[in-house]
Amino acid sequence: MQFKVIQQSKKSLARLGVIKTAHGDLHTPAFFPVATQAVIKTLTSDNIKQIGFEGILANTYHLYLRPGEKIVNKMGGLHKFMNFNGVMATDSGGFQVFSLGAGIAHGVGKIAKIFPGPQQSKPSTPLFNSCDRRNRNMVRITEEGVYFRSHLDGSQHFLSPEKSMQIQQDLGADITFAFDECTSPLAGQEYTKKAMERTHRWAKRCLRAAQITKNKSLITKQGLFGIIQGGEYKKLREQSAKFIGGLDFNGFGIGGSLGKTKSKMYEILNWTIPLLPQEKPRHLLGIGYLEDFERAIKAGVDLFDCVYPTRFARHGIALTAKKKLNLNQNKFLIDKNPLDKTCTCPTCQNHTRSYICHLFRAKEITGQQLLTMHNLWFFKQFIDKIRQKIAMDKI
Amino acid sequence: MQFKVIQQSKKSLARLGVIKTAHGDLHTPAFFPVATQAVIKTLTSDNIKQIGFEGILANTYHLYLRPGEKIVNKMGGLHKFMNFNGVMATDSGGFQVFSLGAGIAHGVGKIAKIFPGPQQSKPSTPLFNSCDRRNRNMVRITEEGVYFRSHLDGSQHFLSPEKSMQIQQDLGADITFAFDECTSPLAGQEYTKKAMERTHRWAKRCLRAAQITKNKSLITKQGLFGIIQGGEYKKLREQSAKFIGGLDFNGFGIGGSLGKTKSKMYEILNWTIPLLPQEKPRHLLGIGYLEDFERAIKAGVDLFDCVYPTRFARHGIALTAKKKLNLNQNKFLIDKNPLDKTCTCPTCQNHTRSYICHLFRAKEITGQQLLTMHNLWFFKQFIDKIRQKIAMDKI
Repeated sequence: MQFKVIQQSKKSLARLGVIKTAHGDLHTPAFFPVATQAVIKTLTSDNIKQIGFEGILANTYHLYLRPGEKIVNKMGGLHKFMNFNGVMATDSGGFQVFSLGAGIAHGVGKIAKIFPGPQQSKPSTPLFNSCDRRNRNMVRITEEGVYFRSHLDGSQHFLSPEKSMQIQQDLGADITFAFDECTSPLAGQEYTKKAMERTHRWAKRCLRAAQITKNKSLITKQGLFGIIQGGEYKKLREQSAKFIGGLDFNGFGIGGSLGKTKSKMYEILNWTIPLLPQEKPRHLLGIGYLEDFERAIKAGVDLFDCVYPTRFARHGIALTAKKKLNLNQNKFLIDKNPLDKTCTCPTCQNHTRSYICHLFRAKEITGQQLLTMHNLWFFKQFIDKIRQKIAMDKI
Repeated sequence: MQFKVIQQSKKSLARLGVIKTAHGDLHTPAFFPVATQAVIKTLTSDNIKQIGFEGILANTYHLYLRPGEKIVNKMGGLHKFMNFNGVMATDSGGFQVFSLGAGIAHGVGKIAKIFPGPQQSKPSTPLFNSCDRRNRNMVRITEEGVYFRSHLDGSQHFLSPEKSMQIQQDLGADITFAFDECTSPLAGQEYTKKAMERTHRWAKRCLRAAQITKNKSLITKQGLFGIIQGGEYKKLREQSAKFIGGLDFNGFGIGGSLGKTKSKMYEILNWTIPLLPQEKPRHLLGIGYLEDFERAIKAGVDLFDCVYPTRFARHGIALTAKKKLNLNQNKFLIDKNPLDKTCTCPTCQNHTRSYICHLFRAKEITGQQLLTMHNLWFFKQFIDKIRQKIAMDKI
């Protein structure tokens, strides 16, 4: 893959760019909808094309467990497997390992205070009953890699930099990520530093593993992004940005704990991004609320991924220009309006709030599908508008 | 609505016809996919158009309970509510009353032996604990109408010929059905006769109720079908066909118990259909397995509805030209073929058995959607081919 900056804003670090891959171009800034299990939940690949997304992101951890990367590979790789001929990214599995470990133990996400989503106001029920689940049960982190248990059946597995690279190569995405340790927003500086240093050593192992297989045609076309860690600590973030930024990656993910508040997240971006090579793309991993985009893009972010629009949709929440609507509320049963009068998506063109509310009350999954379509369309348009603003030198 | 026979087979009672309604034409023989709650489960109205169905059937009982016919009416009627601009039929609610009553008590469907579908090898769990639920708890049938409890919340309701007509008028379908008592295949002749006679009296009340409101523009356009009862008893079926056939209905449903075997069902058709007016359409209610179509059409059936293709799809069963496939089976994980090589549906054009199997194993509802699309497409093509055979005087 190749990245080219097309236009650099004069007012901020925002920029327009294009990532060229074997499966087409991805214009940045861009948002990847998340196809965790090789499917955008409730949608078909045709729907993704219809919305116009040039790229999507799938989860290595989930696909490794089910159906298994060897099966995906046998079926021709992720693009063919799910019949999506656009730009495909896979994460490294590091975040899922965090979720099973410290995520469950601490009941937090990447940002302690805004986690979790609308329907998960409490941390998930722990699968194992232990005071310190992180190290004892679900997840055990060693220098070599991470031992963990499957959330599906409790079976034991091992992920390492080399294994993550092999899985992602078998999956055949256009953009892959180095295997990292994602630390909790509640981890102290000492642990965060230790984890960051390990992530740095793992980054080099990932590059080496990718190098070894670079002669295989499919693999040479894969981009590999390194991940910046360091939690909410300025010194560590700067150290990580310099170290990872100095390695031969095709781009960078800003990962790990993004602090306890949103404003801390922006501080972290401001510490980190100026230290990264200008000519390579930057992906803010797992973040993507509407209100984040413009500010993060101005801080220099090129790529986002987040389950927020799709997860909200499945729980009946529609995003609109004015405010969020909860379509589970009975008041919408007699509302003939579309979700958003200004929206051009198929849902808003064809259906009323009344009908969608009925579908949610009647537990008809078509309702989830209609809202997912709308929310992703809305996100796509939202990011497109920010791209236009950059093009017109407005931000 | 108007019905016109276009071509009568010389070899059988099969015929080509067209039903003209305010919402377009429906070419017969035709199969109505079932939109129980004003949605073909897992699909959007756009998908129905894509498959090419000219008509669908929704359930009065379900829509009366949720969202309520008054709300549908307020939203402009069923067509506008679900944004389907084709021919809409609604049943009378009689069959659902049967399901709640004798259906649960006897653990049977319309045909005792082939009930139920693939995932319902046992009768549903009774909601009320009683030896004779039929009359005591869920359902109480009187001359006036039927008292029953909602399957949603146990609340008490009353359906009568007049109430069913009012609900169907509020829903605004193009084709409506008279309220009948659907008897169990395990009911004896005496009870079946009593129920049939009541259905006959109700039929006249339905016609009267429809007459009273005929001045309202929407209503005059609605067709009303009478329903033939009489169970598996020749004398009763003949009596019912003559009686209902002699009333001023726009068409006829062949309803109630269709015996204990498929061959009994065909006997019933052969007793009944020759006694019905030739110039009116005949609907075999709730029946529609692939193997039924040609034989029933040759016996003179014009219309079918059945949840079979959609319910099978949701449980992972694909219908193909050769045999049924159970996509839950792991062996399909490495099968690159489409569901059916000869099928032109979007699912078969875009996706492999491998991917669909993965989606079912991963509990992704997109799998249900892809199979529903395929099964309905398959049904549509199947009936279209029978129409071609009639056109070419082959059956």
